[in-house]
Amino acid sequence: MPKKVDHEARRREISEALWRIASTRGLDGASLRDVAAEAGISLGRLQHYFRTKDEMLVFALRYINRLAADRIRARIEALDEEPTPREVLRACLSSMLPLDDQSRIGLLVGAAYYARAVHDEALRTEAENGIPQLRAFLTGQLRLAAERGELPPERATEDEAMLLISAVDGLATYVLLGVHAPEAALRLVDLQLAKLFGADGVDGVDAVGEAAGAVAPGVG
Amino acid sequence: MPKKVDHEARRREISEALWRIASTRGLDGASLRDVAAEAGISLGRLQHYFRTKDEMLVFALRYINRLAADRIRARIEALDEEPTPREVLRACLSSMLPLDDQSRIGLLVGAAYYARAVHDEALRTEAENGIPQLRAFLTGQLRLAAERGELPPERATEDEAMLLISAVDGLATYVLLGVHAPEAALRLVDLQLAKLFGADGVDGVDAVGEAAGAVAPGVG
Repeated sequence: MPKKVDHEARRREISEALWRIASTRGLDGASLRDVAAEAGISLGRLQHYFRTKDEMLVFALRYINRLAADRIRARIEALDEEPTPREVLRACLSSMLPLDDQSRIGLLVGAAYYARAVHDEALRTEAENGIPQLRAFLTGQLRLAAERGELPPERATEDEAMLLISAVDGLATYVLLGVHAPEAALRLVDLQLAKLFGADGVDGVDAVGEAAGAVAPGVG
Repeated sequence: MPKKVDHEARRREISEALWRIASTRGLDGASLRDVAAEAGISLGRLQHYFRTKDEMLVFALRYINRLAADRIRARIEALDEEPTPREVLRACLSSMLPLDDQSRIGLLVGAAYYARAVHDEALRTEAENGIPQLRAFLTGQLRLAAERGELPPERATEDEAMLLISAVDGLATYVLLGVHAPEAALRLVDLQLAKLFGADGVDGVDAVGEAAGAVAPGVG
């Protein structure tokens, strides 16, 4: 048992070394040897834990996705005792933006994976699994909001959830590319939520201000 | 004069060889030597046209962005003689999705650039310049729609334009990752437009059908 725990812990340490490389200069140029050096171990030792680069990449991707899910969960748990679905949605979507170092590194690693996944079946399968889970969670929150009378029922759909995820993913990209400041992206997320939940025009601006005030301590 | 034209034509041919590499296996691993081989010329000959990899990358990025802009323009010109702003928006946004080979290759090249640009100042600057231009064009169409009484004036904003671009960019990503079929992404673009232009619920579904029927010949 301790041996197994140790094996897992070591694989995580190696994954973290891989992320440091991915977030500073991308993945494609990184060899097993580079990752071993970054992790401070020999190549032979690394190969004891991962036989191939692909095996290492998939493990490290699953691990970073699990940490991201943990972060979303923690952010939701940090909300009021009984957060509204809209607050839960905001916590979830804002955690997809590079608003702090941890999420920024996660997104840089994601960018490196993305460039690889478009050519790589195994990595693509991991991505395929992740998005529908997120979509299902957001759809559930939209349905809950509709049940509570906070959202028009026709908006509580998988399509709306997917448009939310897509928009936030696109915004995160533009933050990494320096087109937007992180705060500007968050403001657009709030605008999107204000539109979805029925606030519009001048009312919408008010709703954005309110929402930002209400949940801001949980962000960053 | 012919010499200058020839120089430019040669740089384009080399760029196209670079794109073939970028769209099949990414950019990071690609050396000047690889690109020369793909273009069927010697390394020395390639260096006559591009002294460094960075110079080649920036030229090839500008060139592919120009072709993408030409494609959008052509798609808009293929619309009815006096297209509505909504039709122009749909033509523009749908051309950002991988609905045919040309746009798919463009997006794969874009993915390879993106992974590099997050670490590379010069490439990032190119991206920074491109997005605001696109946003300005879309904002102009939204304002035109508002002037024609086809859109609530409070929706004719840069923020709305940015949310449209972000959502379509996110959707394009998910098509490349195999989460969505291209047609499903296009359907979501239509849904987003139907929401923006005020159609909602059952009406929204009708509007989607109509819009798809009206402009479909221009796509794919």
